[in-house]
Amino acid sequence: MQSNEDKNLIVAKLDDGENLFESLENIIEKHEIRSGLILSGIGMLRNFVLGYYNGSEYQKKKFADPCELLSLQGSISTEGETVIHLHTSLADEKQNVIGGHLFEAEVCSLNEIVIRKLDDVVLSRRLNPATGLKELQIS
Amino acid sequence: MQSNEDKNLIVAKLDDGENLFESLENIIEKHEIRSGLILSGIGMLRNFVLGYYNGSEYQKKKFADPCELLSLQGSISTEGETVIHLHTSLADEKQNVIGGHLFEAEVCSLNEIVIRKLDDVVLSRRLNPATGLKELQIS
Amino acid sequence: MQSNEDKNLIVAKLDDGENLFESLENIIEKHEIRSGLILSGIGMLRNFVLGYYNGSEYQKKKFADPCELLSLQGSISTEGETVIHLHTSLADEKQNVIGGHLFEAEVCSLNEIVIRKLDDVVLSRRLNPATGLKELQIS
Repeated sequence: MQSNEDKNLIVAKLDDGENLFESLENIIEKHEIRSGLILSGIGMLRNFVLGYYNGSEYQKKKFADPCELLSLQGSISTEGETVIHLHTSLADEKQNVIGGHLFEAEVCSLNEIVIRKLDDVVLSRRLNPATGLKELQIS
Repeated sequence: MQSNEDKNLIVAKLDDGENLFESLENIIEKHEIRSGLILSGIGMLRNFVLGYYNGSEYQKKKFADPCELLSLQGSISTEGETVIHLHTSLADEKQNVIGGHLFEAEVCSLNEIVIRKLDDVVLSRRLNPATGLKELQIS
Repeated sequence: MQSNEDKNLIVAKLDDGENLFESLENIIEKHEIRSGLILSGIGMLRNFVLGYYNGSEYQKKKFADPCELLSLQGSISTEGETVIHLHTSLADEKQNVIGGHLFEAEVCSLNEIVIRKLDDVVLSRRLNPATGLKELQIS
């Protein structure tokens, strides 16, 4: 893993076989991110789990085969516990696209990730008892 | 709806049932956005209308069922009239992805939106009589 | 083509018929981008080539028909040679989405592109002999 910071923007390269979420936690620690936004992510993923929220719970499905990572958008909050909320779209070898809430992923070949560190905004999560979702709070 | 500003970046959380475009107009007013860029949007949408421009007009199709909002990219101009130009990709419960120009949408569960406010660049729209499209102008 | 700069963010509008990669090279020259990130791209593309990396080489497929450009994310490095690494998702007239590594593309109607110029981070490419990929290096 490599990463560097340009003002409040962090550019990272993850390597083949890395656990995407563990690597993001390493970046959070290295760059002292309290709150942040994932603005971009490309490369490839394998062994990833996508979720769809059906109104009461997440239906999850695992995909083993490598897919091109087309987009990655989300948020990082570290108040209380670290939550990395990511949505993604991926393409298979036929260029067909799948996507959803990303729960797990292994880097395939490499990933290029862009994170915007927030200094003046604090993101946190609060449980909404009605839905069971840990909803974003902005302060 | 919650929102806050970190330098020129606005982070917003929209709540279930909100009209996405009305909420974006509220954010534009609250944060005094003259021109801006939508860099990210995740969460879920329902009752949304996607369009495909066939060279002379937009073919529109409405989707009622909730979908995971995978990506949201676009621009905001307010000269003359407010135009919010959004393209999006969404995933259904089978992880299949659909997308297009976004004309209407209702927030499902919640949305996390990221907007970059522009101070030194003015975006406006000018009608291209040949196509009928209100094309972006950058000054 | 029009473009303007708001601090370190460049907003560009490309016109119908332009070669996307040639136009991006013109923007790189005009705005003196040494390293950069493509954060957003919407509009339409035609005559584009998508690729899937199968572990040893890119399988490429050309698409002639216009598609809505839903997302564009990637990186720009100019050390030694200029490399524009782009991943994209696009929707056809049925709202079905395809995507992959973008190798070639012609602007259809127009494109709105957002680029973050990097001042403190230098991106370059180094050949990984094991894969044949020119991998991103961050310094």
